Amino acid sequence: MKLPRIGVFDSGVGGLTVLKALAGQIPAHYFYFGDTARLPYGTKSVETVARYAIGAARFLEGQSVDLLVIACNTATALALPQIKEAAASPVVGVVEPGAAMAAEVSKQRAAIVIATDATVSSHAYRNALQHHGLEAYEKACPLFVPLVEEGWIDHPVTEQVARIYLGEAIAQAPKEADVLLLACTHYPLLAPVLRRVVPPQMKIVDSAESTASVVREMMHDDHAVSSRPRTSVRAEGPAVSPTEHRSFRFYVTDSVDKFKRLAARFLGRQVDHVEHVDLGG
Amino acid sequence: MKLPRIGVFDSGVGGLTVLKALAGQIPAHYFYFGDTARLPYGTKSVETVARYAIGAARFLEGQSVDLLVIACNTATALALPQIKEAAASPVVGVVEPGAAMAAEVSKQRAAIVIATDATVSSHAYRNALQHHGLEAYEKACPLFVPLVEEGWIDHPVTEQVARIYLGEAIAQAPKEADVLLLACTHYPLLAPVLRRVVPPQMKIVDSAESTASVVREMMHDDHAVSSRPRTSVRAEGPAVSPTEHRSFRFYVTDSVDKFKRLAARFLGRQVDHVEHVDLGG
Repeated sequence: MKLPRIGVFDSGVGGLTVLKALAGQIPAHYFYFGDTARLPYGTKSVETVARYAIGAARFLEGQSVDLLVIACNTATALALPQIKEAAASPVVGVVEPGAAMAAEVSKQRAAIVIATDATVSSHAYRNALQHHGLEAYEKACPLFVPLVEEGWIDHPVTEQVARIYLGEAIAQAPKEADVLLLACTHYPLLAPVLRRVVPPQMKIVDSAESTASVVREMMHDDHAVSSRPRTSVRAEGPAVSPTEHRSFRFYVTDSVDKFKRLAARFLGRQVDHVEHVDLGG
Repeated sequence: MKLPRIGVFDSGVGGLTVLKALAGQIPAHYFYFGDTARLPYGTKSVETVARYAIGAARFLEGQSVDLLVIACNTATALALPQIKEAAASPVVGVVEPGAAMAAEVSKQRAAIVIATDATVSSHAYRNALQHHGLEAYEKACPLFVPLVEEGWIDHPVTEQVARIYLGEAIAQAPKEADVLLLACTHYPLLAPVLRRVVPPQMKIVDSAESTASVVREMMHDDHAVSSRPRTSVRAEGPAVSPTEHRSFRFYVTDSVDKFKRLAARFLGRQVDHVEHVDLGG
């Protein structure tokens, strides 16, 4: 069986939780692009984010991917239509899958959305949830990303911070929410801590797993992905053996070593095949 | 008396602690440039940081400043010589004044330096302290900046984080240090918390206050600053009354509102006169 080739794009390492979820659901060759030299995207204009994301999409299409996953909340929230317009492959973002999954499991029709400042300010999740008939209370949790990147994943300080943020969110939510939507790609690593600090009846929905489920369904849909013509590069490639194994390639715009260190934390294993690339300004 | 015009440059809001220290010591007209759209500088190459810093220096020189303060540890550590080369005005960075002050107060000839990852990796402070005959143990404290920007200045979580970082630093320092050098412009806001978690005999030295002292001395040195010819813009300006008051102007490359919110926390008062400027890619 010929494995599909999936491109995954994020501004940094956060999208690795999406990669991990994808790899857990779909055997494929994965090409991950982390624009680590130009993060954070959250403070940049729509035009700049779109330009960066389209550059990354083109780079991944140069690796002959069959499908592109925008594993970056900011890029999805700000520039998904522009990326879809510019890309030849099907493109999946992280916002709609997370919102759809939250809508599927919520009985109260209300969700608490936790995310970075930039994602909250975009209201991309609130709008997506409203479209599914859910009320949303969005809460920015700016310390979670630095805590994850510091490696304090299951740490007393992180639990204390989580109790403060989630306590405020639950107290301020306009009605009783029964779903907590993790709307930042770093947050799945905090799921065990979050599980301890939210009420037991609150379901935790994770954009990474939701996105992987959507991609898996697309992979089974002939019209969407698998039957589209391969690019000439693929067509001229060597024949693939029936025992072809999944593979991973990583491309980053900043330090390879720093990426490797953080990636090990996100993926739970060492990563090889990390290349530095420079896409310019 | 004609007040001097001082330009202060940082990648973001951190340099406001330097501005506050300067304003406490020197009556002047202050022009602050925060390159908030392009932060953080810590992950960028020397060439990029130098290019950004020189752009900011030129912008401030366009405001006819008499002296430039590089209130940014990364820009000082990576690009001070290039900025000095490019600027027509005298230029003061934050590293050497902090190191000189630490050397002045240390009896043990050993200091603990706390800073961001980027500043620690540059070893700019270790090198400067060695030049003064001090051993230095550098400790990265990546959660301090996000904690300050979250407004958790004097907060139990921040104190817990400080106990962990400083406990590690003191345990790992090669010899007993009697100075704690705050080598990040955000950290002076944490001085009260840090005072509680380090041994009482340990002196806390702050690059912001040290830099302000160096600038004040330069202002009293005719040859360095006050006697240099004014630019034509200044020469043609209106006569200044003897009761001229200090003033503050702020220029930022990202959101004015976000800057105002953070600046109030750093300066302890509301700021007006914040303008958005765009220096390009």
